[in-house]
Amino acid sequence: MPTDSGAKRPAALLSVADATTAILAMLPRTATVEMPLADCLGLRLAEDLTAVLTLPPQSVSAMDGYAVRQDDVATLPAKLRRIAESAAGHPWQGRIGSGEAVRVFTGAAIPEGADTIVIQEDVDAVAEENGAVITVRDAEVAGRYIRPAGLDISAGEIILSAGTLMSARSIALAIASGLTHATVHQRPRIGILSTGDELVLPGQNPGNGQIISSNAAFLSAFVQTVGAVAVDLGIARDRPGAMLRAVRAVPNLDLVVTTGGASVGNHDHIVGDLNQGAKGQAGGLNFWKIAMRPGKPLISGRVDDIPLIGLPGNPVSTAVCALIFLGPAIARLCNGVAEQPQFLVRLAADLAENDQRQDYIRATLSGVGADQLVTPATRQDSSMMAVLAKANALIVRPPFDPVKKAGDLVSVLPIPPLF
Amino acid sequence: MPTDSGAKRPAALLSVADATTAILAMLPRTATVEMPLADCLGLRLAEDLTAVLTLPPQSVSAMDGYAVRQDDVATLPAKLRRIAESAAGHPWQGRIGSGEAVRVFTGAAIPEGADTIVIQEDVDAVAEENGAVITVRDAEVAGRYIRPAGLDISAGEIILSAGTLMSARSIALAIASGLTHATVHQRPRIGILSTGDELVLPGQNPGNGQIISSNAAFLSAFVQTVGAVAVDLGIARDRPGAMLRAVRAVPNLDLVVTTGGASVGNHDHIVGDLNQGAKGQAGGLNFWKIAMRPGKPLISGRVDDIPLIGLPGNPVSTAVCALIFLGPAIARLCNGVAEQPQFLVRLAADLAENDQRQDYIRATLSGVGADQLVTPATRQDSSMMAVLAKANALIVRPPFDPVKKAGDLVSVLPIPPLF
Repeated sequence: MPTDSGAKRPAALLSVADATTAILAMLPRTATVEMPLADCLGLRLAEDLTAVLTLPPQSVSAMDGYAVRQDDVATLPAKLRRIAESAAGHPWQGRIGSGEAVRVFTGAAIPEGADTIVIQEDVDAVAEENGAVITVRDAEVAGRYIRPAGLDISAGEIILSAGTLMSARSIALAIASGLTHATVHQRPRIGILSTGDELVLPGQNPGNGQIISSNAAFLSAFVQTVGAVAVDLGIARDRPGAMLRAVRAVPNLDLVVTTGGASVGNHDHIVGDLNQGAKGQAGGLNFWKIAMRPGKPLISGRVDDIPLIGLPGNPVSTAVCALIFLGPAIARLCNGVAEQPQFLVRLAADLAENDQRQDYIRATLSGVGADQLVTPATRQDSSMMAVLAKANALIVRPPFDPVKKAGDLVSVLPIPPLF
Repeated sequence: MPTDSGAKRPAALLSVADATTAILAMLPRTATVEMPLADCLGLRLAEDLTAVLTLPPQSVSAMDGYAVRQDDVATLPAKLRRIAESAAGHPWQGRIGSGEAVRVFTGAAIPEGADTIVIQEDVDAVAEENGAVITVRDAEVAGRYIRPAGLDISAGEIILSAGTLMSARSIALAIASGLTHATVHQRPRIGILSTGDELVLPGQNPGNGQIISSNAAFLSAFVQTVGAVAVDLGIARDRPGAMLRAVRAVPNLDLVVTTGGASVGNHDHIVGDLNQGAKGQAGGLNFWKIAMRPGKPLISGRVDDIPLIGLPGNPVSTAVCALIFLGPAIARLCNGVAEQPQFLVRLAADLAENDQRQDYIRATLSGVGADQLVTPATRQDSSMMAVLAKANALIVRPPFDPVKKAGDLVSVLPIPPLF
């Protein structure tokens, strides 16, 4: 399945984990800003969030029924007198006494003195007038269907910690707890630069030997899905200094990502430019061969004080390296960690022994439960964008993974729908 | 673990699958519009996309090295004369003859007559002047490291089908294939209405028996993450007609989602309003008890000609029902299908036998590979937003699922990071 196996060239390769560590180590954090919670979707908290309110603020019913005293329903059936009603937003302020029942609805405050819920299905002849007598056929144990004050949140408690990605559910939690704003890291501004004499811009007609630049469009969309702002730096031609000029033309970048020009080919100038651009910041430049497929050459460095990640130029390599390195990098710029859980799934086809590179095999998931299978695409060339677009999973094979047979379990990274 | 088991009330419950089918069946499709591809992220194609270009446009090298004729490297080592160079964007137009080699770089056009790549590591003394003689120590089989014309895309081929969610990688594919625009379904406008006398708006100070409305904030963020536009309809109080007035106050809604007011409690008026609001469109109103937990009451209906889904009001029920029903509904409004793959993961703790409701248990994933575990949260009450915010997975248990022990496999739905 490998189409450009590195097996013949046993040069020292850096592991994906070590490359990730090195990239993350060079990144600063973006500035922080206070924002209305509704605008925080996809941003990461710069500080812990502390609840202002207790939720529920008092004991409330989880069901429609009656609030009663356990003593009064120890013997069933029991006849009780309906004395009041407590509804969500309309609490009854009194105290329940012996032989009394208070009609309650979901979310309603439990009156003082009551410790037991009778659900309405367990009462004969639901009478809705105060003073009416109800017959209780069955009752819950004390406390059941009662949500005690503070079950969800207690005032003063840390509800979300710094670095948390603000999701729909965490925004809702923060709002429910009495907050209106949060201090978050600003969306990183990611400069995106394509390189190569063969590239023309989308909308242009490619001439002989030319292709349309698409990596920038991929990266622009991708960084948006992980909470960053894409800044288009255009195309740098294969000439010394072109990359430096493009990066320096745009202010306030938090990170630059380049694609292509990262090999040792005579037409690749990113490394040379970075040697020029480091301005004495020695050690900023790394030119790596990563033990991964697709993707092998990877560059990190700085232009002046802006960190730069150089991705390989084949579209599938660009995309997979973005998922594996750039996603975590953008999370780190916001002081967070990107979650990318993998799962074990049964193979639908055999896979040959893997070489020294960690393999990210484009694949499709099908079936459910015990019938779930993952089917590797038959061709894995790193230029094949159509295969990547149809895939919904990557099979992740560690270096030197032995032969796998159909039916064996392999690690699968589900592809995020917007990736 | 269930806190509000319906086991005592064996009323006919509708399965999650049947409820989903019924909801999807009532939905129209949004209008279509032509958009620049870069603006299509998260939208769904209204028409198939057909490639304008072939990719690669001609055979290209996948490696840095030399293009040669297989006949010339049948006996090794072989001496060949470097006659030209072909680089990405700078194709050489000639034809290679016997005893000749053309220097090639990744992405460069393969000259006519060449069928074999010699990678540069297999050549002694890489000479970069034309006329220089190179010594080839090893060569690939014919065709290896050569990407034939059309390997990725052929002009005229359907590359993405109607209904496809436009992701970063599908946008890149469409651009690479020569397209600049796509016809997509407009983002659905989702009206979001909270109901309940107990609710105050975010930023207000809740009085006795009141809580801050947070479901609308959740739903607003959630629908954005699945490609829709949130339209805030505010809070409807527990009075007949309040829902109808709120919905009719805003034009051009594709779907209305309400939370709360969906029980048969005396203070719940959504069902009554829908009976008023259907305007003779009989059959539009369904009041369901769904065999799921959290969430049981679910409403579908219409206000005039606008479809409406009524979700339960407990925040976790709202959220889980949004994931299970609203996400697929928004995909359907755009003629697509929401992908929500589940995976089998080992349990970290025992689970009691399940009752007749499909259970969505808030849980956390930990560990990798064979050590991966899913740990159910100890409390599953549908009011507990903090538990949901910390969870990164839902264990999905079918109705009547037998006892599960720690170490058993269960189905897990990973929670999308922005959910």
